[in-house]
Parts: sequence; structure tokens; C-alpha cells
Amino acid sequence: MIFSVQVKVMPLRELLDPQGKAVMGGLQNLGMKSVSDVRIGKNITLQVEAESSELAKQIAEEASKKLLANPVMEYFEISVN
Amino acid sequence: MIFSVQVKVMPLRELLDPQGKAVMGGLQNLGMKSVSDVRIGKNITLQVEAESSELAKQIAEEASKKLLANPVMEYFEISVN
Repeated sequence: MIFSVQVKVMPLRELLDPQGKAVMGGLQNLGMKSVSDVRIGKNITLQVEAESSELAKQIAEEASKKLLANPVMEYFEISVN
Repeated sequence: MIFSVQVKVMPLRELLDPQGKAVMGGLQNLGMKSVSDVRIGKNITLQVEAESSELAKQIAEEASKKLLANPVMEYFEISVN
């Protein structure tokens, strides 16, 4: 069975996010003063062939650790649809 | 009140996603043959000051249209926590 797995990779909360800061500056220049913080990460959708959603999640976790996320700067969250 | 709004920006389904294809190649080289498709987009977290979650969602939608997403190549989904 094929599962659609979402992996959200975000910069660690303790770290600055220069891309997010730049986008926040852009929004404020556009007059959107009600946005007080912006953080930008990646959203990765994997199509995983597996016997159960648990196994699909394990495969996505392995992929995240090996390739998708850099643990020095990022954390990841996985959800299976 | 401050709402945390998630904006998911993904490449349109009709378009190729070269970054995703490259990552899929990488995963297959690592021996993870059960992953059959990868698409990569952005995940943006906004802290929005608004009176209700409906208004926060509207502000995030305006920000997405004006700056965060390029409608020629991307679509976006908004969820408010």
C-alpha cells in the first residue's frame, strides 16, 4: 500500500532564522504590521510503499535522519495521511 | 490575541519538482527503494496578532498572495492553531 507521508523540517527554535526575518521585513514593508514573527522551513511529501502506516512512518523517519533534515540546525515532524 | 498560523506552500501538482526528484535520487542511492515520489515545498509559521482565528487566517491568506507564494508555480494551504 502507498502512504502519503508529510515531513515538516523547521529551523530549531533556539536558532535565528534569517530567511524568516527577511520575509517578516517584507511583510511589514507591505503594511502587514500584525505579523510579529516568521519562521520558514521545508515541507516534504513522500509517497512510501509500506505494509502499514507505522512502517511508512519509520521509513520516513529514517529518510529524515539520513538525508532530509540536518539535526544541527533543524528538527522534523512526521505525519502519515 | 496571537495566533500561530501555518502556511504550506507546495509546487503545483502539474509541474515537475526538480528538487524533489534530486532528493528521491539521493534516497534511492541510500537504498531506500520504497519511496516512490518526493515533492518539496515550504512550511511557513507566522505569529499573527488578530481578534479571532478567522481574521488571523485572512491576514495569512493576504500575506501568502502578496509575498509567500508564487501562484504561477505554487499553491498554498493555511491552518490556524
